[in-house]
Amino acid sequence: MQGLKDLVGFSVKDKFYKYIQELQDTITSRLEIVDGKAKFQEDLWQRPEGGGGRTRVIENGNVFEKGGVNISGVHGKLPKSMQAYFKVGDVDFFACGLSLVLHPKNPMVPTVHANWRYFEIYDEKDGSSPSGRSGGASWFGGGQDLTPYYLFEEDAIHFHQTCKTACDKHNSDFYPNYKKRCDEYFYNTHRHEGRGIGGLFFDYCKASEHMTMENWYNFVTEVGDSFLEAYVPIVEKRKDLAYTKAQRNWQEIRRGRYVEFNLVHDKGTLFGLKTNGRIESILMSLPPHVQWVYDHHPEAGSEEAKLLEVLKNPVDWINK
Amino acid sequence: MQGLKDLVGFSVKDKFYKYIQELQDTITSRLEIVDGKAKFQEDLWQRPEGGGGRTRVIENGNVFEKGGVNISGVHGKLPKSMQAYFKVGDVDFFACGLSLVLHPKNPMVPTVHANWRYFEIYDEKDGSSPSGRSGGASWFGGGQDLTPYYLFEEDAIHFHQTCKTACDKHNSDFYPNYKKRCDEYFYNTHRHEGRGIGGLFFDYCKASEHMTMENWYNFVTEVGDSFLEAYVPIVEKRKDLAYTKAQRNWQEIRRGRYVEFNLVHDKGTLFGLKTNGRIESILMSLPPHVQWVYDHHPEAGSEEAKLLEVLKNPVDWINK
Repeated sequence: MQGLKDLVGFSVKDKFYKYIQELQDTITSRLEIVDGKAKFQEDLWQRPEGGGGRTRVIENGNVFEKGGVNISGVHGKLPKSMQAYFKVGDVDFFACGLSLVLHPKNPMVPTVHANWRYFEIYDEKDGSSPSGRSGGASWFGGGQDLTPYYLFEEDAIHFHQTCKTACDKHNSDFYPNYKKRCDEYFYNTHRHEGRGIGGLFFDYCKASEHMTMENWYNFVTEVGDSFLEAYVPIVEKRKDLAYTKAQRNWQEIRRGRYVEFNLVHDKGTLFGLKTNGRIESILMSLPPHVQWVYDHHPEAGSEEAKLLEVLKNPVDWINK
Repeated sequence: MQGLKDLVGFSVKDKFYKYIQELQDTITSRLEIVDGKAKFQEDLWQRPEGGGGRTRVIENGNVFEKGGVNISGVHGKLPKSMQAYFKVGDVDFFACGLSLVLHPKNPMVPTVHANWRYFEIYDEKDGSSPSGRSGGASWFGGGQDLTPYYLFEEDAIHFHQTCKTACDKHNSDFYPNYKKRCDEYFYNTHRHEGRGIGGLFFDYCKASEHMTMENWYNFVTEVGDSFLEAYVPIVEKRKDLAYTKAQRNWQEIRRGRYVEFNLVHDKGTLFGLKTNGRIESILMSLPPHVQWVYDHHPEAGSEEAKLLEVLKNPVDWINK
């Protein structure tokens, strides 16, 4: 019943793929207006084994120093390395999603990341169905999270409240659960600190007695639709604040931690590298200018130290 | 026979640990003279599970923008994650080594990396012997390799010739074998290009009918002793060359590839992270200022393109 098409001909796969194409347009148009200078550069690419993507990158803007809002849809034989990961045999797969990362120039504006994706693994016997009857499956995953360099509590609350409002329309357990998973996932274990102040992270959202795939589609697109409302007001409020060279250095050092997470721990980056995705589209997430300073520690009591405290001990921004 | 001490009381472990301490002094003293401005900052650290290290980092010098020449000696229970890697059970281990990475300021001066290490895994039954009689083992590993931003062929030849001279005193197969392994190891598979122009890489150098552990000790220390001769003349020759802002940008972009290798592929970094090494000592290898520019390609026929050609197709620098 929760297969590729349901009783009324609703195809989750086709509908979601169309959705992310439209959402990419909506988000890039709006961000170009916010930036006021730079335009997204578009690159279409094809994956030799099946599928491809539409990468849109913005660089050297008034607001955005570097960022990408990319969609891709890939399919074919599931690569060997991923077969072991998903504990399946030699099966076909389909995956599509929108991934975005924005690195603003001004250290008072946070970096943001979001991703919404849909995955199908097909039955080993019947290669066209992800029904789960003989090993096939389909699921949604994704989320959105904020990485500030300087902490404005009202911004953190606004971002989390927007996430919660989107979640609460579907299930009041979603926000607390997915907020917690976000804090756990975007964590630099080797630094004992979070990458940022979190948001939402969900994965393996499969059909169950409580949620059909159409219900999950409605939830995931609700979160996708909330992105601009979650992020843009923060950008507008902070983009013209003055900052010092020392504050810019701090931003570049913190961006180093962002690189460490993405290259050492991030499963999305790993998936891209293992499925022979387009390397420049996968690594668009890396920041433009980055520093590594040996054994850097901010002064006790400083704004920089205050941020670290929050990264080491995640905050409940809603019930603060 | 090739255990911890041989017939005349020669302890590989003690002798090598003493050797790397002295080599660290020799190398850091010489590099401070070459730099002429910055001094190495020393940090002693202890590993809670056993052992520790002496980290020496140089920053913001005339010549060296950032670099580290670190030694460590760690021991105790082999961590679970490494047990799987070495395919052994719940055993004790000892590992010591010197690791160095130098990131010069001037893009005409290459980055260099070197490492010389010694490892013992003890028998499950007799915890004091790495004899190999019931699962224990001891081995050397290491090498040195060069990462230029602009290719001076005479520098590449000098570096490789110095490596070859050191190797040839022990076995004429060593240089060709370890040069090839270096090209294979320091390779960014996701970019289809080498990290640099190579040098030497060897691992699991164990006692055999041809080489005792004392023979290996003599070989590895011969390579260690050759480091300053391999690198310093290149630094002296290039450190005062003029360079443009565009050339500096190219260096920072290439440093991004260095970060990608170290965080995605390097087993040494992984070993450090998995054995709860001191994070700032492990990640001292990351460059000070780094850039990621979307889909950057040098102009055809340029000096930058010439370097990429060599990184994609390793050169036999000795028989060129």
